[in-house]
Amino acid sequence: MKFTMLPEPWDTVVRDVTEAGHDYVDSLHDADFLIFTGYADGFPELPPSIKFVQTAFAGLDGLAAQGVLTSDVRWANAAGLYADTVAESTLALILGVRHQFVPTIRKATWDLNSQLQEKKAFLKGGAQVTILGAGGIGKELIRMLAPFDVRVVAVNNSGTPVDGAERTVAFNDLSGADDPAFTEADIVVALAPLTKQTKHIVGADVLAAMKPSAIVVNTGRGPLVDTDALVDALRNGEIAGAGLDVTDPEPLPDDHPLWSLDNCLITPHVANTVPNMKRTVGPLTVENARLFEAGEKMATEVDVEAGY
Amino acid sequence: MKFTMLPEPWDTVVRDVTEAGHDYVDSLHDADFLIFTGYADGFPELPPSIKFVQTAFAGLDGLAAQGVLTSDVRWANAAGLYADTVAESTLALILGVRHQFVPTIRKATWDLNSQLQEKKAFLKGGAQVTILGAGGIGKELIRMLAPFDVRVVAVNNSGTPVDGAERTVAFNDLSGADDPAFTEADIVVALAPLTKQTKHIVGADVLAAMKPSAIVVNTGRGPLVDTDALVDALRNGEIAGAGLDVTDPEPLPDDHPLWSLDNCLITPHVANTVPNMKRTVGPLTVENARLFEAGEKMATEVDVEAGY
Repeated sequence: MKFTMLPEPWDTVVRDVTEAGHDYVDSLHDADFLIFTGYADGFPELPPSIKFVQTAFAGLDGLAAQGVLTSDVRWANAAGLYADTVAESTLALILGVRHQFVPTIRKATWDLNSQLQEKKAFLKGGAQVTILGAGGIGKELIRMLAPFDVRVVAVNNSGTPVDGAERTVAFNDLSGADDPAFTEADIVVALAPLTKQTKHIVGADVLAAMKPSAIVVNTGRGPLVDTDALVDALRNGEIAGAGLDVTDPEPLPDDHPLWSLDNCLITPHVANTVPNMKRTVGPLTVENARLFEAGEKMATEVDVEAGY
Repeated sequence: MKFTMLPEPWDTVVRDVTEAGHDYVDSLHDADFLIFTGYADGFPELPPSIKFVQTAFAGLDGLAAQGVLTSDVRWANAAGLYADTVAESTLALILGVRHQFVPTIRKATWDLNSQLQEKKAFLKGGAQVTILGAGGIGKELIRMLAPFDVRVVAVNNSGTPVDGAERTVAFNDLSGADDPAFTEADIVVALAPLTKQTKHIVGADVLAAMKPSAIVVNTGRGPLVDTDALVDALRNGEIAGAGLDVTDPEPLPDDHPLWSLDNCLITPHVANTVPNMKRTVGPLTVENARLFEAGEKMATEVDVEAGY
């Protein structure tokens, strides 16, 4: 097939896909499929030649909001492709928050020793980690958490037990903010796709119900967490801390109050990085193109109705 | 037996040890053994009644430097007691340095995104981790590193293969700075006790021989790393970064150049914390007292000649 890449071709991906027998073309109008790596607001109008779109990212909520995620073509995303990088970044945020890296790095003085003796919280030893949206990234995170003897509560759509989780609950079966998934959690990790059901799933009620020693980590999508409620909860000590790689709004403005909190560790949407995308999108695209040509469902085919 | 605790008794430890049948006494002169939790320069003169000393820390180099680590009494340290906490802190430093937490937290702006895309280095995927002094902490660290598919090179005294290490080398068999343990390392972790052999084992020559992308993490003893050489190496890009929980000098003065470097993550000697010591020193002391009374070698008995 013929393919193009927007907003610009990535050498590594073009090489991987052409080596599998496809031909790179400059014009979208000559292409059978599009590999899209940009922001939703830069998505092009698709000509009839395009049969499927492969995105270099997992979350298609931006495209859905732009109204371009329609069943006129088929869609494949990058779900699972960055499971290891995002899981690693999630673990780094968990450790960074519990080990008090923000005040440690900001204050830059040995005098902090006595304060840290009490405030530093080790992960090892029985912490409950609730994973909201335990898909591919969650499973990799569970593997990385295994040496720390945590108790994982997985929350997913089906309620189908997740390997390594002590308990799996379906989103629909959560009783609300007073569910043990929240009230007994030491760490709540938000990894779910953004849908009507998951938007603000970590809201004022959940934050109030969580233990004062607990933390929230969001490496999913910014609006999974209600930002204003989070600022309040971090200021008032309703929870102990937060680690955020995604925020709402995003980018987070320089004068946003979250930046000033000593119990909030923020990374600017780098849980996965472009070099890793450049390395991995090619092989996935090749596999999806093969499945498409075989008339099968693609490995990461998106359910346009569900939005992921 | 009768015991006391200096510089002050810790409730949890006194409770654990008295519950095992020993009696707490206020005066050192009435005690059969001493549990010492303080700094070396506060170590008391020992009366003849004292038969053994249990320390609440693992590194006895400070006591040796004070000239009090003699064979007039027997010594037991806390080796292995904090393996899980120190290993966890080591992993947190590794991730914090490779994920660029210092500039991220200091700059506190989403604008850093493009810079981090290239600078952020994931741990997952074949990194070589060289552990200098792969004892109890090293073994726990290897367990925590397992999900990241790293290649571990263990360095220890005997050269006896360490579980989970791809290769184990004896300190004496290192060829020098050009040893692959250094030149091929992505991460060099210093965990060894401080001895004449290990002092400045990470010196100017080793730092110059390491890859520019590599990092050093020291959660052992400050003088394992030559501080001046490290400052130069971090400034000149000879290595990519450092994570330090121990320094030389220690405490590190507020105006020390290490604090100002964006590629150096410093925590003020909190790889293990006092609350964790209070929880764990009692049971170890009980076991060591039992072995002592049975005329056996204590579980963490110190070789006074070797110093650890």
